[in-house]
Amino acid sequence: MDNEVNLRVLLKSRPVGFPTEEDFQIVESSIPEPEEGEILVKVEWLSLDPYMRGRMNDAKSYASPVEIGEVMVGGAAGTVVNSRSPAFSVGDIVEGRLGWQSYALSDGSGVRKVDESLGPLQTSIGILGMPGLTAYFGFLDVCEPNPGETVVVSAASGAVGQIVGQIAKIMGCKVIGTAGSDSKVQYIVDELGFDSGINYKTQNVGEALDEECPEGIDVYFDNVGGLVTDAVMDRLNIRARIAVCGQISQYNLKEPDLAPRNFGILTRSQAKMEGFLVFAYENRYDEGLNMMAKWIKEGKLRYREDVVEGLKNAPRTFIGMLNGENFGKTLIKVSN
Amino acid sequence: MDNEVNLRVLLKSRPVGFPTEEDFQIVESSIPEPEEGEILVKVEWLSLDPYMRGRMNDAKSYASPVEIGEVMVGGAAGTVVNSRSPAFSVGDIVEGRLGWQSYALSDGSGVRKVDESLGPLQTSIGILGMPGLTAYFGFLDVCEPNPGETVVVSAASGAVGQIVGQIAKIMGCKVIGTAGSDSKVQYIVDELGFDSGINYKTQNVGEALDEECPEGIDVYFDNVGGLVTDAVMDRLNIRARIAVCGQISQYNLKEPDLAPRNFGILTRSQAKMEGFLVFAYENRYDEGLNMMAKWIKEGKLRYREDVVEGLKNAPRTFIGMLNGENFGKTLIKVSN
Repeated sequence: MDNEVNLRVLLKSRPVGFPTEEDFQIVESSIPEPEEGEILVKVEWLSLDPYMRGRMNDAKSYASPVEIGEVMVGGAAGTVVNSRSPAFSVGDIVEGRLGWQSYALSDGSGVRKVDESLGPLQTSIGILGMPGLTAYFGFLDVCEPNPGETVVVSAASGAVGQIVGQIAKIMGCKVIGTAGSDSKVQYIVDELGFDSGINYKTQNVGEALDEECPEGIDVYFDNVGGLVTDAVMDRLNIRARIAVCGQISQYNLKEPDLAPRNFGILTRSQAKMEGFLVFAYENRYDEGLNMMAKWIKEGKLRYREDVVEGLKNAPRTFIGMLNGENFGKTLIKVSN
Repeated sequence: MDNEVNLRVLLKSRPVGFPTEEDFQIVESSIPEPEEGEILVKVEWLSLDPYMRGRMNDAKSYASPVEIGEVMVGGAAGTVVNSRSPAFSVGDIVEGRLGWQSYALSDGSGVRKVDESLGPLQTSIGILGMPGLTAYFGFLDVCEPNPGETVVVSAASGAVGQIVGQIAKIMGCKVIGTAGSDSKVQYIVDELGFDSGINYKTQNVGEALDEECPEGIDVYFDNVGGLVTDAVMDRLNIRARIAVCGQISQYNLKEPDLAPRNFGILTRSQAKMEGFLVFAYENRYDEGLNMMAKWIKEGKLRYREDVVEGLKNAPRTFIGMLNGENFGKTLIKVSN
């Protein structure tokens, strides 16, 4: 593995439409030394997530774009191997926005020590990290589910979707997931306990929803946008709630995706559509982590990881994830 | 006026796109007699409102469509002239969904006695009726405004918009309205106290919003949809709230209005978009009516009515309102 040098994945050019491997540059440099107040982390796991596509654009968003020539942003977990910060010691196991690199310098901001008793290290950037917390607060706080309600989750086998659907089951909801292959659909139903699944690539989503939820839809947790979302919106019940978590179908378009305006549905359904970012719940992260760790230990919450070895494979793996080629939470094993 | 017979405006055909006068049929019939439990109301005022366009379609909505040959639905106010209901006496002043007709039979459901001490009779179907309550609860409850926040209201000189903007000023907000003529813009600023107005027909709304609210937009009360809404959404502040009251720009289209999907804005702004119907607040109507009556008496809340005489002019006036030709709350004076 990439232990002897610092391997870094930089943004080389801003993609137009789908990223290609040429938009990334992989460079080797010497392992850096921390300045006063800094730590050096040897990265073991890197999380790949759809939001990173947005950081590749030079566009207004909730976070600054990655500049050309900068290391790609990303949540990562590893071990402190050098510390000039009073807050961290060599040997501490940490996670934070350490980027696509095998060794990361950090001033410690946004870096937290991982409680390994909760789960394996990589869960700290997965189900017991940002993706899990996104599912937990986005579903429970934004969607305000009630027992017996019908919940639809898009990208249902993905890092966030798989957790949302299982929490919905824990809450006593009926859950339908959409995913992009029959094996993913089978997985969410057979392994995760969703009530049913829809393959949006081979089925007519509207007709399938009519069949699977004739009683209408009370809650929609949206990771994808586009035609799946259109079909759900046409079937909202009164006072339905939509959490807009992601819109991955829209991230890689060269031209805007034109669609009939449908805000009027919100009025006639008295429905609420709310966008959220997990950072808004920062002061409640412990609540979410402890609850999900408990559910995992009780066997109520399972998770699937899609692990690829080697940081050099991160660009290809990331592009594949944007294409839906991943199956579960996408992770890069950077080092041992 | 139309006192000797019962003049009724029926839906003759379902419009495709903009309604025409040929979609309505005006018929004269004898004045009906109430059955046991019914009342007969002589209508004095009829309210014309954008939602009625939706009732002309044979489409799923929050209320049933008007059937072909039925009298058009609408809020109206008048005097009970015959009663076989224990709940009403001859001479009672009432308002309710009495329809586009000069005499209305009713079983009393949804009909309320009007407290004329609050304001002139027609205000019971205007500022102190459904449009006013829509503004009151839609703005205060759905938008949850805070002092100092920037509020944008579309169709700002209309029945609902003019009230929303004034309540926003009472709440200590900065208020920008959009309207379709310079005289309407002048009215909302000079007469109603809005901070500024934008003529969406002659100005670039996005550029004008950049100029009028460089600090961004915290609250949007939307009556129109379409391009005005697009421009507002591009300028939302973090945790902005949008009340989707109406989408009048979309009601009369023969083909769907295609536009770039923009739900992703909600995520990056952590914004909420909520549709609502005033009926959800029925148990709090008295609170709204009393507060608005108080504000009117204190001179804090003004209203403008656009009155047309004669029920026969209702179709033409309604079509004009859908075109933005009205200036203030559109009312038909049916009888004295």
